[in-house]
Amino acid sequence: MEKITAKDNEKIKRYAKLASQKKARDVQGLFVIEGAKLFEEAARSDVQVEQVFLSESFLPRFEHLQKPSSMPPVFLIGEAVEHKIAGSPSPQGIYAVCKKLDKPLNLGKIDNNGKFIALWDLQDPGNVGTIFRAAEAMGISGILVSENCCDVYSLKTIRAAMGSLFRMPFLITDLDAFLEKYRDILHSYAAVVDKDALPLPSVDFSGGSVVVIGNEGNGLSSQQANCCRDKLTIPMPGSAESLNAAMAATIIIWEMAKGR
Amino acid sequence: MEKITAKDNEKIKRYAKLASQKKARDVQGLFVIEGAKLFEEAARSDVQVEQVFLSESFLPRFEHLQKPSSMPPVFLIGEAVEHKIAGSPSPQGIYAVCKKLDKPLNLGKIDNNGKFIALWDLQDPGNVGTIFRAAEAMGISGILVSENCCDVYSLKTIRAAMGSLFRMPFLITDLDAFLEKYRDILHSYAAVVDKDALPLPSVDFSGGSVVVIGNEGNGLSSQQANCCRDKLTIPMPGSAESLNAAMAATIIIWEMAKGR
Repeated sequence: MEKITAKDNEKIKRYAKLASQKKARDVQGLFVIEGAKLFEEAARSDVQVEQVFLSESFLPRFEHLQKPSSMPPVFLIGEAVEHKIAGSPSPQGIYAVCKKLDKPLNLGKIDNNGKFIALWDLQDPGNVGTIFRAAEAMGISGILVSENCCDVYSLKTIRAAMGSLFRMPFLITDLDAFLEKYRDILHSYAAVVDKDALPLPSVDFSGGSVVVIGNEGNGLSSQQANCCRDKLTIPMPGSAESLNAAMAATIIIWEMAKGR
Repeated sequence: MEKITAKDNEKIKRYAKLASQKKARDVQGLFVIEGAKLFEEAARSDVQVEQVFLSESFLPRFEHLQKPSSMPPVFLIGEAVEHKIAGSPSPQGIYAVCKKLDKPLNLGKIDNNGKFIALWDLQDPGNVGTIFRAAEAMGISGILVSENCCDVYSLKTIRAAMGSLFRMPFLITDLDAFLEKYRDILHSYAAVVDKDALPLPSVDFSGGSVVVIGNEGNGLSSQQANCCRDKLTIPMPGSAESLNAAMAATIIIWEMAKGR
């Protein structure tokens, strides 16, 4: 097993770039993960792992990890190298380069039974990852992600999504155009803070539907909300400020799933 | 305005201890907050602010902040001092020592209409804070916190709760004894992952009720669950692993609030 000790090794430089730059991920169609748990989640899913980097002390544990069906090349790394690429204060010992998932929502499948969540310009990777988890738990059909959302392939989002990113169907797309295109097939709802909007419990999610969640700071603009057929709101006796985007989305996803 | 430049100033040493040690907070009945937003939230609530520390550059902004009704002494601090007490990488400029809230749940008010959430040994301050926010948004009557939960007065919990800690009635107590004492007044439910438990949507929350949420890693032990009259579960078509304690609690709180 080749050991890499130089921080300016080409593979290491590439890894570091993929870890820190959305542009590098976009251009190369790759992303990185770290830690045994995410590695196993990736191995168990359809994600194609391209390269693995291990610290020497992690090697014995690696033997027992679930491996991807097609085993990628594995490299040992020295301490200085690990220090350079580790994305968390306590080094995880295992790092991998993966191919971006080629599982866009099967658009042929968007019919009048699907339940979708659309994320319009969310900026917090923790929120986006949490929404992926909730959507998977509740059996939501898929997630639409606007092009100006934070990158779903950043390590922060991947960590917050805890493997659900590897399994949930999702599509990064122009939401404007998507909502227009599927207007007759999916009943679209803008999630807003507005007492005149439809109260969530009264919404009938038995048919195909998509609920659009807005940016953390500003919610949906009226222009964005107007791309939807209706507006819905979560009735709250307390302060509206008290629910963040991920919590609001979790409640909405729960209600959509009940409408099956 | 007195300016403190020595890191070993007694007031600064006390602040640093309160920030880092639960024991110091318990013994002194004090806690600390930082940042303009939390300071204003505290000022607007019943929280008694005892001391304020400001960086020089924050001074002009301080003029415009909401102040507590009874103004505490204010001290300027030098850069080295701020560096010592700042709890986040980007210094917030304002730090305060506050008195712990003396608003235990009014136990006389625990009647057959209240809705309560009980947190049994939760360890993640982010989860606990998030649950406080959701409970406030949905108008839950109060929160019971087991004695082995993470400290609700740590800065991490306070930050995650975003002011709701200052407003929500809560009680740190022996949950065993609480559940036993109120067994006939509050219908208690253990939130578990168990297909044989009552599905959440079928639970009638119209009367007084308390739902007990378990530790992040292990959930409720069977002994803990047996302190409750019934068990409930969140039906999930997807993977149960996918909901964390805060998300599960948010959904439960939403359903409880609907049962009003």
